[in-house]
Amino acid sequence: MRQLTQPARGMRDFLPDDVRRRQYVIDIVRGVYERYGFEPLETPALENIETLTGKYGEEGNKLIYKVLRRGEGESSGETDLALRYDLTVPLARVVADNRGKLPKFFKRYQIQPVWRADRPARGRFREFYQCDVDAIGSTSPVVEAEMIAAVSEVLQALGFTDFVVELNHRELLTAMLDAGGVPAALHADALVAIDKLDKIGRDKVGDDLVARGIERAAADVCLRAFEDVPVFNELVGRSERGGAASRNVDAIMTLADATPAKGHVRFTPRLARGLSYYTGAIMEIAVEGIGSLGGGGRYDGLIGMFCGEQIPACGFSLGLERILVVMAERDMFAAKLTEAGPDVLVTIFDDELTAESLRLATELRSTDLRVELYPDSLRGGKNLGKAFKYADSRQARFVAVVGQDEFKNGEVKIKNMKTGEQAAVSRKAVAQHVRANLQPPTSRLKE
Amino acid sequence: MRQLTQPARGMRDFLPDDVRRRQYVIDIVRGVYERYGFEPLETPALENIETLTGKYGEEGNKLIYKVLRRGEGESSGETDLALRYDLTVPLARVVADNRGKLPKFFKRYQIQPVWRADRPARGRFREFYQCDVDAIGSTSPVVEAEMIAAVSEVLQALGFTDFVVELNHRELLTAMLDAGGVPAALHADALVAIDKLDKIGRDKVGDDLVARGIERAAADVCLRAFEDVPVFNELVGRSERGGAASRNVDAIMTLADATPAKGHVRFTPRLARGLSYYTGAIMEIAVEGIGSLGGGGRYDGLIGMFCGEQIPACGFSLGLERILVVMAERDMFAAKLTEAGPDVLVTIFDDELTAESLRLATELRSTDLRVELYPDSLRGGKNLGKAFKYADSRQARFVAVVGQDEFKNGEVKIKNMKTGEQAAVSRKAVAQHVRANLQPPTSRLKE
Repeated sequence: MRQLTQPARGMRDFLPDDVRRRQYVIDIVRGVYERYGFEPLETPALENIETLTGKYGEEGNKLIYKVLRRGEGESSGETDLALRYDLTVPLARVVADNRGKLPKFFKRYQIQPVWRADRPARGRFREFYQCDVDAIGSTSPVVEAEMIAAVSEVLQALGFTDFVVELNHRELLTAMLDAGGVPAALHADALVAIDKLDKIGRDKVGDDLVARGIERAAADVCLRAFEDVPVFNELVGRSERGGAASRNVDAIMTLADATPAKGHVRFTPRLARGLSYYTGAIMEIAVEGIGSLGGGGRYDGLIGMFCGEQIPACGFSLGLERILVVMAERDMFAAKLTEAGPDVLVTIFDDELTAESLRLATELRSTDLRVELYPDSLRGGKNLGKAFKYADSRQARFVAVVGQDEFKNGEVKIKNMKTGEQAAVSRKAVAQHVRANLQPPTSRLKE
Repeated sequence: MRQLTQPARGMRDFLPDDVRRRQYVIDIVRGVYERYGFEPLETPALENIETLTGKYGEEGNKLIYKVLRRGEGESSGETDLALRYDLTVPLARVVADNRGKLPKFFKRYQIQPVWRADRPARGRFREFYQCDVDAIGSTSPVVEAEMIAAVSEVLQALGFTDFVVELNHRELLTAMLDAGGVPAALHADALVAIDKLDKIGRDKVGDDLVARGIERAAADVCLRAFEDVPVFNELVGRSERGGAASRNVDAIMTLADATPAKGHVRFTPRLARGLSYYTGAIMEIAVEGIGSLGGGGRYDGLIGMFCGEQIPACGFSLGLERILVVMAERDMFAAKLTEAGPDVLVTIFDDELTAESLRLATELRSTDLRVELYPDSLRGGKNLGKAFKYADSRQARFVAVVGQDEFKNGEVKIKNMKTGEQAAVSRKAVAQHVRANLQPPTSRLKE
């Protein structure tokens, strides 16, 4: 019976061109994060199921992939492991597990896939990469400012100019809802509604707030404040917590102005962020007409769930898949990235010259050229056409042929596939000839 | 309740030093494979369960991690997905799914984790990386020779000198067992026993063969031949299939001699390889006193299980975890790889100089230096000691201080943490000063 050949629903295979683009973006992200002093961390794909449950809210819980217990447990349907759902909870576990081993201020980056059994949609997949930075151990607003700076530099290095880092604070939201007269028990509900202000508009959010049990008068006060920064500031400034949070946001904005994020940060009162573990500043990257490319915030309580000690922390997660989709749509990759083929395709002119061709390939590779060997013999030239057709399809830059005559004379016939020029070059000079005639390395980004 | 903080059984967290070493080895593997014309491919961690079952034998089937169906299926214990068990079966699926899109000769590399619910042991983990190369579409012995060349170059680039690529052929094994009088129905059993010749010795393997139902006389003939190449060759040469396989092995060995594998390939009659899908040449890397670092072979039937058309293929898989364990044991990593810390630790002398310090960090990062900002204010110098202690623990190469005086004079105080030297350097010259005094980049491998 023939088998299904597609990847599982919501999953993707990445062919060479895809991988090259992904790798290119990941390399830029990694380069910037390392310059900022973040260090790499990796955690296993499978976690004990208790590590993940109860961290992502009821909705999140349902989206976790659960793994059947092996051996005798298998028939009972019991599960003991689960697939990584984000990179933050595993980090909290690792920090708790390695107290004493890690530096006092631990700054890590982590670029790995996560899995969520979400309904697949355009740009939404069930396996996707996150690129996270987190800084553990400090409550200083310098931490938030540096995070905003780092993600801004990543986006700039990738060619984005029109992004905004939206900034808000969980305590401001609490202070605002208190001031507006929303009962504490309804805060979470209210935030879910308010988070949609930029998507569905003021009227619908107002109705939603009322539907969630908030009085119309309170809803109106809140909505007016959320769309008018001076009103918002005046209301939150009435409480001590609100005032402190305001000063924290101001400090972060001032500091971010001393970094590459200058001009890209915007205080955004309606920003709420979904995850429940945030305790301080929250941030999100918005790109006009695109939506969010990532977000983060301060979560001073999460690590304590693992080690019993409160340890301050702040993180930011970039969505690799979203970034790739936008870069492809906007044609932000240079052609270079899809230049798949080898620098040189070495052919085998005749069976008895096979080892000789392998030797040539070895020599060229030792000079760092990318060399593919056409594995079938050309049978004394009879199949030369096939090899050139293949070279074309592979976008090979040069084709090398060593026939009996060339072999005797210590030469190689080499054809430039772009110009069509052919030359007989002394064996020792082949690599140099190829290198001299390769296109100059172009930037991987469009100018 | 406090939560468990360790990774799940058989899984590992990789702290920064670990990740750096893994990344270093992966980069070398990737570099060599790209020079050989292999292109990157990635497949999802989760596959439809039917894609994996029936491919790895009964033993393998039990080790596959199975994922519970979501939603209503959850309570029934039904499974529909499974975690990638190797990189070969997903490749076969991708090749079948992309016929026409891929080049006629498709050479891909793939470096991703796989999961097996094996009993954890020293050097054996439940999540581990494989580094695979496979060449699809050609039956030429050039394919095997290039694969042997590529893995040899990887090992040499990593610093291994004492490795042997053992080479054998499935058809030689069949011909030999036929010639020795082992009934075809017992061939698979016989190979499992013979594969252990180098581990448990001739006598025990002989007993094992007999215990598996093979006559003592046949077992004796086989054992003599498996340890004596001329005898082996004479016996297999009696059949047409055996003769053809012999010539194939000879061709591969001759060709490999024209590559960096020269002197590292050894015809090894007892080599059987576990997986059942091999049909031709089989190969394994042996290192004295260590065992296997990887292996592979030709499998001309597997892709046909997915697309109904026989497509020749040959692959080789390097075991990243084993390589890392051996390199650590043999102290083959240079100290450079564990140099975690930043080039410069920038401090904040006083609260009002915070933005100024961020600006300095930004300037230094723009010259590609790795810069960490000590997030707490030194409170006018009172906490200078703390910052230097932290710089030490982080192995920072330099510490930069901008006090009020330095700020006014456009200068930065900079301390070389290795020599203890301190200097007041003009703001513009800081990056240059640091760069001039950084250790010259040393090789990442021990000399």
